[in-house]
Amino acid sequence: MTYDEKFMKKAILRAKKAYAEGEVPIGCVIVCDGKIISSGRNRRETKKNALLHAEISAISAACEKLGAWRLCDCELYVTLEPCPMCAGAVINSRIKRVIFGAFDPKAGAYGSVINLNEYPFNHKCAVTSGVLKEECAGLLSDFFRTLRK
Amino acid sequence: MTYDEKFMKKAILRAKKAYAEGEVPIGCVIVCDGKIISSGRNRRETKKNALLHAEISAISAACEKLGAWRLCDCELYVTLEPCPMCAGAVINSRIKRVIFGAFDPKAGAYGSVINLNEYPFNHKCAVTSGVLKEECAGLLSDFFRTLRK
Repeated sequence: MTYDEKFMKKAILRAKKAYAEGEVPIGCVIVCDGKIISSGRNRRETKKNALLHAEISAISAACEKLGAWRLCDCELYVTLEPCPMCAGAVINSRIKRVIFGAFDPKAGAYGSVINLNEYPFNHKCAVTSGVLKEECAGLLSDFFRTLRK
Repeated sequence: MTYDEKFMKKAILRAKKAYAEGEVPIGCVIVCDGKIISSGRNRRETKKNALLHAEISAISAACEKLGAWRLCDCELYVTLEPCPMCAGAVINSRIKRVIFGAFDPKAGAYGSVINLNEYPFNHKCAVTSGVLKEECAGLLSDFFRTLRK
């Protein structure tokens, strides 16, 4: 298992927790110096809050943990391509690298609908896409298939 | 004073509060059925959290107030053009209209650097720009002028 796959597996565990709670299964972990410092899962429905994507919870917790709004040494692992809100939060928190699993053709902001890295904002992150994408996408399609039944 | 100017004045009050706290002076109010239901001000430095833009605080508080993640009947007034994170949060919370004061040539996501409304996301908001822009921009330039001294 690669370094990226190891941490994506941890993000997938958070996605599975969201699934068990009836939420769209998306999970995230933030890694600093090879260690997980925070995590998040989608809690939009449970908390009735549009902002509670997995990444937002994880970034907020990482800022709290490090006592800083700049997360320059951090890597963010998330099971689904971030939306503009979350990719914008990555810009604002200066996260150095984003690693995502499945692509999101409806809302993805690293190439699927838009690529925020192509615009002259004051920070650009490195991006690695498609890590364990079958497993990440499988969770989502399974969730929606069950929901429709 | 117009309807929009009336509420922008309220957002400016929040920006002034941020100013007094040593934060970049940006303020926001969210209006539903002609009444302010929540507000926010920039607290990035005070709270050491990259996500605490005025709009994020106001949207989160509005979701809590209404007990819903959809803010379809809400209007968001903010003194500075929203960044991608905040414009993305507007998409995610289905806010119907955004009214901003000053333009942000470095990070604005309603035309200055990018226009998120031009992409096929699953929600588009109406946008009114430049409301009391001199006052909104004046606060910012005054803040940065003082900071440089």
